[in-house]
Amino acid sequence: MPVVHVYVWRDFSSEAKRRIISGITEVFAEIGVPAGAVEVIIHEIPRENWGVGGEQASEKFKDVQIP
Amino acid sequence: MPVVHVYVWRDFSSEAKRRIISGITEVFAEIGVPAGAVEVIIHEIPRENWGVGGEQASEKFKDVQIP
Amino acid sequence: MPVVHVYVWRDFSSEAKRRIISGITEVFAEIGVPAGAVEVIIHEIPRENWGVGGEQASEKFKDVQIP
Amino acid sequence: MPVVHVYVWRDFSSEAKRRIISGITEVFAEIGVPAGAVEVIIHEIPRENWGVGGEQASEKFKDVQIP
Amino acid sequence: MPVVHVYVWRDFSSEAKRRIISGITEVFAEIGVPAGAVEVIIHEIPRENWGVGGEQASEKFKDVQIP
Amino acid sequence: MPVVHVYVWRDFSSEAKRRIISGITEVFAEIGVPAGAVEVIIHEIPRENWGVGGEQASEKFKDVQIP
Repeated sequence: MPVVHVYVWRDFSSEAKRRIISGITEVFAEIGVPAGAVEVIIHEIPRENWGVGGEQASEKFKDVQIP
Repeated sequence: MPVVHVYVWRDFSSEAKRRIISGITEVFAEIGVPAGAVEVIIHEIPRENWGVGGEQASEKFKDVQIP
Repeated sequence: MPVVHVYVWRDFSSEAKRRIISGITEVFAEIGVPAGAVEVIIHEIPRENWGVGGEQASEKFKDVQIP
Repeated sequence: MPVVHVYVWRDFSSEAKRRIISGITEVFAEIGVPAGAVEVIIHEIPRENWGVGGEQASEKFKDVQIP
Repeated sequence: MPVVHVYVWRDFSSEAKRRIISGITEVFAEIGVPAGAVEVIIHEIPRENWGVGGEQASEKFKDVQIP
Repeated sequence: MPVVHVYVWRDFSSEAKRRIISGITEVFAEIGVPAGAVEVIIHEIPRENWGVGGEQASEKFKDVQIP
């Protein structure tokens, strides 16, 4: 406890993943949860599989850069 | 709000995904939720990883077609 | 297959839930998935537990009506 | 994008929830994701429903304080 | 690792939850995963919020008993 | 009902998956849930995407074997 599931578009860099994992863990540590108890699971989703407002992100956000 | 996670077997066509995303968004629009607020995330699962009644779908449903 | 998890704010009416369940099921039926195979699970989340843009929805969207 | 589901034991304070939401959002902002696009959903789970190492947390961790 | 999310109808007994948690943990132990690493999270869903074949389980399965 | 989502590191063998699916189904059958109603979905996550205690499992657990 806690378990955190993060859903993002595919192809975040390994460095971005590292920062997501350490950053979220720190958020919990700062409110008094032991860092060792935090699990963070990152799920990478193809934009074609992600809809916003009824449209595939592969269309709607095709030019958005990933960190 | 809302966020919708859809779990299906792998290899739905891009057209099927498009219809899932637009169709689910419309369901919410029809009950008064702004379409722009709807996020739909499709997760494609290999049949080997999906069990029904204790058996892998890769065995139990190996002849079922995907739309 | 498929399994659909819907996350919404708390206190949707029973009629709205009924329409979400039947509507999403129909979306799959229309692309050739047997309706009987569709499971839809609605999760109701207190606005205090839902953050958008870093703020709790209980603050940011406190006047938004639920269908 | 992104959508973050946080699973914690029940009864985090409203202040702790606020800090989880703003803190996680900031983690993404720092790697270049627009804060406005971040959704964080906190799920509170009774300890009786959470197992670690085969035991219910209501037994194993009954004296642990929640922030 | 692993993290297991179990979704069931509301009102399983505490004994049933205990057996779900210990039983699932044992399944992993038997294939060589350390029991201490297994987290099981049980989510209880009102039948009104669970649809099967387009109908709410509160209608379709209103007479089914819960263990 | 029930639906079970299992999150594990990538590259479990097909035999391990088969045992996870049949084993979890049996856990429910033993408490009186019909086996045919149990759906188990296994999600395989790259270790780089899984954080424990703020570190990627690809670093922290790089020598751990998968069943």
